[in-house]
Amino acid sequence: MAGLVAEIGAVALYDELRAGRDARGLLTDVAGRLAEIEPERDLERAVRRAIRWIVPGDEEWPASLDDLDRAEPLHRMGRAPLGLWVRGAVRLHELTTPVAVVGSRSATTYGTGVAADLGAGVARAGAAVVSGAAFGIDEAAHRGALAASGTTVAVLACGVDRAYPAAHKRLLDHLAEHGAVVSELAPGCAPTRLRFLARNRVIAGLSQGTVVVEAAVRSGALNTASWTSLLHRPLMGVPGPVTSAPSEGVHELVRSGAATLVTRAGDVLELVGGMGEHLEEAPRAPVTARDLLDRVQQRVLEAVPVRRPASPESIGRTAGLGAERVRSVLDDLARRGHVDRLPTGWRLAEATDAVR
Amino acid sequence: MAGLVAEIGAVALYDELRAGRDARGLLTDVAGRLAEIEPERDLERAVRRAIRWIVPGDEEWPASLDDLDRAEPLHRMGRAPLGLWVRGAVRLHELTTPVAVVGSRSATTYGTGVAADLGAGVARAGAAVVSGAAFGIDEAAHRGALAASGTTVAVLACGVDRAYPAAHKRLLDHLAEHGAVVSELAPGCAPTRLRFLARNRVIAGLSQGTVVVEAAVRSGALNTASWTSLLHRPLMGVPGPVTSAPSEGVHELVRSGAATLVTRAGDVLELVGGMGEHLEEAPRAPVTARDLLDRVQQRVLEAVPVRRPASPESIGRTAGLGAERVRSVLDDLARRGHVDRLPTGWRLAEATDAVR
Repeated sequence: MAGLVAEIGAVALYDELRAGRDARGLLTDVAGRLAEIEPERDLERAVRRAIRWIVPGDEEWPASLDDLDRAEPLHRMGRAPLGLWVRGAVRLHELTTPVAVVGSRSATTYGTGVAADLGAGVARAGAAVVSGAAFGIDEAAHRGALAASGTTVAVLACGVDRAYPAAHKRLLDHLAEHGAVVSELAPGCAPTRLRFLARNRVIAGLSQGTVVVEAAVRSGALNTASWTSLLHRPLMGVPGPVTSAPSEGVHELVRSGAATLVTRAGDVLELVGGMGEHLEEAPRAPVTARDLLDRVQQRVLEAVPVRRPASPESIGRTAGLGAERVRSVLDDLARRGHVDRLPTGWRLAEATDAVR
Repeated sequence: MAGLVAEIGAVALYDELRAGRDARGLLTDVAGRLAEIEPERDLERAVRRAIRWIVPGDEEWPASLDDLDRAEPLHRMGRAPLGLWVRGAVRLHELTTPVAVVGSRSATTYGTGVAADLGAGVARAGAAVVSGAAFGIDEAAHRGALAASGTTVAVLACGVDRAYPAAHKRLLDHLAEHGAVVSELAPGCAPTRLRFLARNRVIAGLSQGTVVVEAAVRSGALNTASWTSLLHRPLMGVPGPVTSAPSEGVHELVRSGAATLVTRAGDVLELVGGMGEHLEEAPRAPVTARDLLDRVQQRVLEAVPVRRPASPESIGRTAGLGAERVRSVLDDLARRGHVDRLPTGWRLAEATDAVR
């Protein structure tokens, strides 16, 4: 149907179907549904509940969704949605660097902790979080973003006036107040399995990249991951213990090269941001006292035995330096706490936890 | 010195130095050491202690080490060792698919558990484990291989007659009995920092690939990792919780693309084995009852609401199927336990934990 909308336009198609003409074989399928639909009534009701309907061409329409029309579809609901129902103060075209944070409902404490940290970190950098509204990772990502007073968007597999799961009614109301709740399904629609799969493409399509935090081998989050790959947008995965089943799907994504490993918001922003926008320094150990030694001092230090003390002569032979020189360097190294002088010779100080 | 050995031969160089002639400026550095060395005595002693000395050209010489001479060196001890002292029953040229398993001394319980599993898994597949002899990951990898009655090789930064750490004396004796203990340093030599760094290149050089299990940002294991990359051999990393500092170095290796993520011995063997030798199936969830449904059944099931029951008519509209057809499919799905019939309509059965 999306194809026909693109071809002859939504209004023409609607009129044709409404008039009972068979729009290229679609009528049997659509007629039953169409009879029950009263678009004017739906829109009026939505407006009363502060829900708006946006379509391509509207200022608020997020252009990033249009890439779905160019991607090879994963299944028959593969195209860009015909429109979106939006509840919330945030306007979708104004989202900064939206990042999807998705994962298992049956997440571990580790997973929800990481998702909340990521949500907060992404939000703190000024980027928006996008996710579903499920228990587990989705919920944690939103809560993290909210805690950082950031922008976060929930995409539902039912109408935006409904709460699924019901326990998340307050969370969804809160999201509508501080972010946005979005769905391509009309208000009142119930969630079905197919709608969850279709919803996942909207999450991927709305976002500049997707991070998967904990996803078992058969997880809906991996479906969102596939959509992200089809859209040629950065797909990222947060690792966990290899002994943890909820991390198995993520590890497979990273192992196969489909996803890049990320460990924190900085990594994510580096990948989804504009070129050079969020450059992240690789983690480095703090500079140690050892780094401050000159080359000769380092050379001597490297030749000092770890355990059994040695004489300056023996150390000098290993280091390729004369014993006199070594003796004075050793005195200096001892003052700096790198080596210990024992009655039987010199050895590394206990505290020196060097590369071994 | 290794360069001169390659150029004029070890015997000629030794004779020249022994005779007090300055072998191209080396004499000052080497003379002092040479005076103390009695090679014949060293070899005799070694033989008495069941230690053998192998050099390039010997049958036992592991040819994989020669690649070190072709690699861009990391530091001045970059070349292939001039020879190796070996204690143990296993002959180095007979090692099957040797795999280095290295990591932090200050490993977590998670890390040592994973290293032991990997060591055992690699050994069970008939491949050899190579590691150092440190506490933590090294020790766990050896113990895992030994537990699987496999072959395991320890490469030391001191003479093979010495135990460092001292607490590993029994482990090293055991390794010598069931595998091999190897060093390029003559018996009696003490470990120094430089020797640990040099030792790491031998671990990488002896192995067809290296797995890093837990390595903090400044860890010797990352030095072994660098050697592996310089040798263009597979470098692998086992992920862990992103909240765990000992996994930080591994995550950075994977994130940067230097290492491939692996979670179990099968992944490792697939990467280091000959092409197609150890092919690993990607983890899959078991086939569920849902997979056995035909297309129409799946289509109906996907249209059944998750929570609020719906009529066959409503489900049919979502699925694009007539109500009659849907009714009979729903009856069948109910018998199979996928959907529940409630007074107000149909919804998914509780047990159906589908992709959402």
